[in-house]
Amino acid sequence: MSNADDPRMRGFRRRAEVADVLKLLEERVKPLPPRRTPPRESAGRTLVEAVAAPCDVPGFDRSAMDGYAVRGEDTFGATELAPASLRVVGTSMPGESCTSRVDRGQCVRIMTGAPMPEGADAVLMAEDARTDGESVQATAAVAPGKNVSTRGEDIRAGEMLFEAGRRLRPHDVGVLVAAGVDYVFADRRPSVNVFATGNELLPPGLRPRPPKIVDSNSPMLAALVERDGGVVIHNERTADQPELIRDMLQRAEADVLLISGGSSVGEEDHVPAVVRELGELPIHGVAMRPSSPAGVGFIGGRPVFLLPGNPVSCLCAYDFFAGPTIRFLAGRSRDWPYRRVDLPLARKITSEAGRVDYARVRVVDGRVEPLMVSGAGILSSTTRADGFVIVPRDAEGIPEGATVTVYLYA
Amino acid sequence: MSNADDPRMRGFRRRAEVADVLKLLEERVKPLPPRRTPPRESAGRTLVEAVAAPCDVPGFDRSAMDGYAVRGEDTFGATELAPASLRVVGTSMPGESCTSRVDRGQCVRIMTGAPMPEGADAVLMAEDARTDGESVQATAAVAPGKNVSTRGEDIRAGEMLFEAGRRLRPHDVGVLVAAGVDYVFADRRPSVNVFATGNELLPPGLRPRPPKIVDSNSPMLAALVERDGGVVIHNERTADQPELIRDMLQRAEADVLLISGGSSVGEEDHVPAVVRELGELPIHGVAMRPSSPAGVGFIGGRPVFLLPGNPVSCLCAYDFFAGPTIRFLAGRSRDWPYRRVDLPLARKITSEAGRVDYARVRVVDGRVEPLMVSGAGILSSTTRADGFVIVPRDAEGIPEGATVTVYLYA
Repeated sequence: MSNADDPRMRGFRRRAEVADVLKLLEERVKPLPPRRTPPRESAGRTLVEAVAAPCDVPGFDRSAMDGYAVRGEDTFGATELAPASLRVVGTSMPGESCTSRVDRGQCVRIMTGAPMPEGADAVLMAEDARTDGESVQATAAVAPGKNVSTRGEDIRAGEMLFEAGRRLRPHDVGVLVAAGVDYVFADRRPSVNVFATGNELLPPGLRPRPPKIVDSNSPMLAALVERDGGVVIHNERTADQPELIRDMLQRAEADVLLISGGSSVGEEDHVPAVVRELGELPIHGVAMRPSSPAGVGFIGGRPVFLLPGNPVSCLCAYDFFAGPTIRFLAGRSRDWPYRRVDLPLARKITSEAGRVDYARVRVVDGRVEPLMVSGAGILSSTTRADGFVIVPRDAEGIPEGATVTVYLYA
Repeated sequence: MSNADDPRMRGFRRRAEVADVLKLLEERVKPLPPRRTPPRESAGRTLVEAVAAPCDVPGFDRSAMDGYAVRGEDTFGATELAPASLRVVGTSMPGESCTSRVDRGQCVRIMTGAPMPEGADAVLMAEDARTDGESVQATAAVAPGKNVSTRGEDIRAGEMLFEAGRRLRPHDVGVLVAAGVDYVFADRRPSVNVFATGNELLPPGLRPRPPKIVDSNSPMLAALVERDGGVVIHNERTADQPELIRDMLQRAEADVLLISGGSSVGEEDHVPAVVRELGELPIHGVAMRPSSPAGVGFIGGRPVFLLPGNPVSCLCAYDFFAGPTIRFLAGRSRDWPYRRVDLPLARKITSEAGRVDYARVRVVDGRVEPLMVSGAGILSSTTRADGFVIVPRDAEGIPEGATVTVYLYA
């Protein structure tokens, strides 16, 4: 890295436009290669290739009822008052081959799912039979084929089960498993590494001990990733030391890397330099507020999001850049995952032209009230807020009474 | 258990009404006691008790910017052309106590998040300073208080963070973690045991080997439980032997027990008797089709759902009875989780009065076509279907042209 590229302690010379960052991400981030997925893990995933059935389901003729396997014709005319008597010559149980054979005037006790004995062509329901020692009295007639589930009647071997593009439902998973499908090619949830840097960070779960603070970004990011269809596979914190950050990033195995803290232009902001060294950092500094010290890089082709350590900036940079990318990789829409409402502004929002603003607001009596907040560190401003309004790049704020789109957090 | 209660091989003498089963479940299944949940695991959960902050956030005055901690008045009047010169007397780093003190004409290099040194009351941004050996030239004035995040400005110790009833957002989790909250009392995802019985069952992932079939109900149920907000904590299969079933149910630790197979009136249907022995079985046999051999019991106060082994019956019994219960325990609406549309029926649906029917249908050109299916074993009928129509108890089918509500699977 040349010194000329190092903006530390000098400030950003030029900030990228939000729209250009999004465009870069859309151009550079490609869909993940589909993964061989066992059917059991495929619910909710979308098939990338069609799937055919390797086996018949059922694989053999079997009873669809508990009762007696009979020759249907032996029961013709049977009623409650004039039952047909059938001799029980055996039993057919689920999971066991049946060695008995049904001849005229005979039957075999049979359980649901048990193989049909040779000679039988129907099953008399238990409800329609009275037991009588070694015989049963059929009190109703049963037509040949009745209550028998024939080989392949549900699924035939070789049959196309699902076309590519099918989003698999819970019972689709059942069909795949029943037919003995080993795996499908489905899209997959992108894996995400959530990293945090900072000498001041204590692990989540501890009390803050000044001048140390608790790493609240990692659990927030983990919840955001989960919401957006990603899977956090590793979460790690490290001190502000280039060699530790380098080691952490080199060990990263996920599809997407998030790293909060150390992204700005301070003496201890080593992350940008390390990302440049391991890959590239086309974006460092964005014309937005908060989160102007955000960055986007690539290491080994995988996107790396440099998120400012300030919690609101971290949330904002995630939501603008990392969120759409993770949703895209998860096969979802890149669009904001928030419900939106259009409402009038109760008080003007001030902003500077040339940057995009993420203004937290409350909705009170159908009007939008901007929250007065002093800085990107005030995470509780997002929890007091009902949502946010985006002030576009070219606007110098938004006047009172104008209709704005509120993205609702809840 | 008395023999008089045992319906095996005699059929159900009386079937419960669907509405009565739902009523029983609403009366008997109580909300789960809230659980102490670490904030990190609480995203998406609903608070049962309000939470107050144990600590100030930040816990100390700190810099909100990378730059130089100064006495604001020392910079008054400074411009690009007439900078104010300040001597650098130390550095304040995040996570470390600062021992330097800022007197008139002095400053301390400071990083975002580092503690403010004594004597300083503002932070000059790095962008507004030119370094010059041991001094910096402030090229802009900075007002006292500027770029300083004061102790407790985000959150004050003792402050109410969230009221009971708040569904926690990702950034709420950040606030809880930042304030050092150890745990919250939140509702929780009900845990579910998914059991299957049957001598004929092979584990999911294998190919069917007649007369053995693959247990497709367990993975389908796992996906349904996940959809409904539950967590499968244990999945087990056992043969049709009362002592093995008893052992499996006695070891069950979940909030809800699902057991597929062995629920009917066949010789090998041991589940109802075992459930009666370990607890109670107020429902066995329901006036519906499919899944009339479904049952609902209670063991140690926890609901046990006896789901027929036939896959469509299993799906249907889950969706009618287990699904609403799991959703209720997860703090969701008991209502069907399917989108619904009202459309005219292209062909009549036949049914018998006195039972509720779950009719799988396709939607073709805005009209509802019932699927012709022979039995509850045809799981592929649910994957060919776009959804289902419920034929009410008192109807003898629904005539062609009538408007019906379709519950859409997708």
